[in-house]
Amino acid sequence: MVTACVLIIGNEILCGRTKDANLPFLATELNKLGIQVGEARILPDKEDIIVNTLQDVRRRFDYIFTTGGIGPTHDDITSACVAKAVGRKLIRNHDAVAMLESHYSAGDLNEARLRMADTPEGAALIENPISKAPGYQVENIFVLAGVPRIAQAMFDNLEYRLKGGETVQSRTLSTNLGEGLIADGLGGIQDRFRNVEIGSYPYFKDGQLGVSLVIRGFDNGEIDECCKTIEELIDSLDGNLIFSS
Amino acid sequence: MVTACVLIIGNEILCGRTKDANLPFLATELNKLGIQVGEARILPDKEDIIVNTLQDVRRRFDYIFTTGGIGPTHDDITSACVAKAVGRKLIRNHDAVAMLESHYSAGDLNEARLRMADTPEGAALIENPISKAPGYQVENIFVLAGVPRIAQAMFDNLEYRLKGGETVQSRTLSTNLGEGLIADGLGGIQDRFRNVEIGSYPYFKDGQLGVSLVIRGFDNGEIDECCKTIEELIDSLDGNLIFSS
Repeated sequence: MVTACVLIIGNEILCGRTKDANLPFLATELNKLGIQVGEARILPDKEDIIVNTLQDVRRRFDYIFTTGGIGPTHDDITSACVAKAVGRKLIRNHDAVAMLESHYSAGDLNEARLRMADTPEGAALIENPISKAPGYQVENIFVLAGVPRIAQAMFDNLEYRLKGGETVQSRTLSTNLGEGLIADGLGGIQDRFRNVEIGSYPYFKDGQLGVSLVIRGFDNGEIDECCKTIEELIDSLDGNLIFSS
Repeated sequence: MVTACVLIIGNEILCGRTKDANLPFLATELNKLGIQVGEARILPDKEDIIVNTLQDVRRRFDYIFTTGGIGPTHDDITSACVAKAVGRKLIRNHDAVAMLESHYSAGDLNEARLRMADTPEGAALIENPISKAPGYQVENIFVLAGVPRIAQAMFDNLEYRLKGGETVQSRTLSTNLGEGLIADGLGGIQDRFRNVEIGSYPYFKDGQLGVSLVIRGFDNGEIDECCKTIEELIDSLDGNLIFSS
């Protein structure tokens, strides 16, 4: 199993002002590549917390993705933190400077903007087709922008560097039965199908409670078999299958 | 400063299937009460990770809020994890059973549903007006449902137990100037106004890049003064103030 940890960096998420959109994107895309996000953290713009977290998670996961904190302002401290966490010097990356020079006219490329070319020594840049200031990879850490559109464009330009494992397949069944009604039967089915993971997620829709059952695993045959057994359970309890995808 | 850590528990968030809505809600509401969310984590449905995380964060933050994993199915393991983390027995809580009995007819209250009445010994229940299965507080940990509507209703019923500190005030200024143009001036203003925190957040809107500047602090006079200084900076750089709130 190939795993990743996502670190969303920025006070704006922690104070509720901005809703994060990077985790859902990264989780979905990484999943397609056979990489499971094992944990995600939302961190404040505080050096000690970012550095300590990086040092902890970079040993426990195959890949680390950070988003946020690589702009030109005083609250953009991600690169300094990453350099510290991996024990490398923060240097002005000449290739990154060249990228900025291609975007800004000479008078506009001030010192604040040049800070966006600072990376840990030996970092491999990730192109940013939108606003040019690049992301980068250093060891197993991928440093991306916080603006979702830029983070997504950067991801397109780094995907080829990732080596995933088997891809998790999933199917979803939804029913109008209460979770409590199917719980016993479902637990029994989970015990029988040890190689799939059955998630049960209640929801409200049009004033009605329902439940989505997500069956995930590596073997489509096994997933199908498990789904069939769950459909039989729903049927035996006089429930309706609302949808199956 | 009174702080909180939010733990969002559930594989469905980590695989990108479901977008979390509980962190923005909790962060906003806690902020109103003078409680700052210092960190948030999204955790898989895995006992060792949940237990270790709880043991770590409950010592570092004043309050811990968990969402998710308290339903009746096999993948609902939050209560067992919380009990383990605080070193208390998981018991069947009689008051919680009574709440379930008021909701379900006798034949419908099966063993799976009764599991929703299991809490760590000595937990103080949090009423759930929607589907009755309660949340609870044990020590400084508040255990809430994952379904946002239920989590929000539970929060209304626990607010009175929280003791916040001073409330953070904030104002937002937006401008069409690039972040890199204002960065130097902004850094200087941040150095002058040590008791406010200036966050700079670039955004795309209608195909244009802009930047929102969020000024946060405890003293409205100081925030106003800082905003005025930033408005002067924007003006001196021939920028437009797009909005101010």
